Amino acid sequence: MKVDILSLFPPMFEGPFSESIIKRAVSKGLLEIKLHNIRDYAAGKHKVTDDYPYGGGSGMVMKVEPLAACLQTARSVNRQAKVILTTPRGRTFNQKIARDLSEENGLIIICGRYEGVDERVKELFVDYEISLGDFVLTGGELAAMVMVDAVSRFIPGVLGCEESAASDSFSDGLLEYPQYTRPPEFHGLSVPQVLLSGNHAEIANWRRRQALKKTFANRPDLLGSARLTEQENKYLRELAGEQIH
Amino acid sequence: MKVDILSLFPPMFEGPFSESIIKRAVSKGLLEIKLHNIRDYAAGKHKVTDDYPYGGGSGMVMKVEPLAACLQTARSVNRQAKVILTTPRGRTFNQKIARDLSEENGLIIICGRYEGVDERVKELFVDYEISLGDFVLTGGELAAMVMVDAVSRFIPGVLGCEESAASDSFSDGLLEYPQYTRPPEFHGLSVPQVLLSGNHAEIANWRRRQALKKTFANRPDLLGSARLTEQENKYLRELAGEQIH
Repeated sequence: MKVDILSLFPPMFEGPFSESIIKRAVSKGLLEIKLHNIRDYAAGKHKVTDDYPYGGGSGMVMKVEPLAACLQTARSVNRQAKVILTTPRGRTFNQKIARDLSEENGLIIICGRYEGVDERVKELFVDYEISLGDFVLTGGELAAMVMVDAVSRFIPGVLGCEESAASDSFSDGLLEYPQYTRPPEFHGLSVPQVLLSGNHAEIANWRRRQALKKTFANRPDLLGSARLTEQENKYLRELAGEQIH
Repeated sequence: MKVDILSLFPPMFEGPFSESIIKRAVSKGLLEIKLHNIRDYAAGKHKVTDDYPYGGGSGMVMKVEPLAACLQTARSVNRQAKVILTTPRGRTFNQKIARDLSEENGLIIICGRYEGVDERVKELFVDYEISLGDFVLTGGELAAMVMVDAVSRFIPGVLGCEESAASDSFSDGLLEYPQYTRPPEFHGLSVPQVLLSGNHAEIANWRRRQALKKTFANRPDLLGSARLTEQENKYLRELAGEQIH
């Protein structure tokens, strides 16, 4: 997959894209990332990329012309790409969006700055406005890195079999159960006996209950859409009861 | 504020932390970031930092001993720090958490890997488990960068007055209204007349309606907790009506 990234700060991507899964995807030829500096497409001696907002207000707004010119260059080689604008005004990024984007023929990501991008960029060029979450970032660069990482994991061949199995386990709608590895005891804390039992059914049952417990504690909002058995629902009612009394 | 980051891939941070708001906060002396390579604290010739999970299953688990040793070093100079573990099992990061963290005396962020961290790390050392969102990342490094960016914006003196006003405007519970800057016309699209009118009351009214419209379209979940006037609620019912018919 070809990914073009339009940014005012391309050097930000150096570290994240030279390590880990993205580096591996690039070196396997499964991912091709091209960074574009929007400033290179700004007119005049001062290469101005932002200006005051019409109607007043604080902050500066990214101008439409340099972005339009930069996009044209990116599109000339990434013709079927979908265009994404990173913005707190977008839909919230999640695993489903990551999977959907991984099936596109190419992506062009415009890194917005928080203060805003001229709305005509969106009207003329943008397919998806995406937000990373309900928090304010200085710019869309970190959001773009996160999206590229999460999307890359869905591109066939990027992950080994072991790893893809692991990421699938997220999709049962619950948080993960706790994990333990050697040593069996550390600072007085032992690995739960059941995990050493070799009894696969009991281990699976323990893990499922732990996942329910963790989800109940940290992300009760996920429980509404998780597929649960009657017994599991009963267990949740017990947890809720403990909380009240 | 002192921030210690414990990672298996410290070079990932080079780009993001050498640009933009974080660079500015560091150069002003308002933020001090120290990266620790967890591998440096692993024992033996092979510096093993992960191992197979007890009870079976795919993926590897980060071992408790190297993390404990690395944490001890970080804590020896960042004594009052709260310890954060980045993990999809945590509470979802948001603007309120960012603000709360900015008021701590120091932070130590452990970058987990998706496959998991030995649960005893959490039990013994972690104050907050935080997730960036409902998606799977290869590691917690990108999450740590995002958190440091969002938290830094709340440290007094990091942003200028203009910028902090802008970030406050996020807190009214609605998505931002569209912004426009010069030129007044581009590719046949004109800036909305009202923004050129100079009538501040009309501009404010138009922007508020646009914010409502955008929130209704992209993030209806936010409307429940936004403070709206009776007239604004009526406008939302009209929008909902249009959608049905």
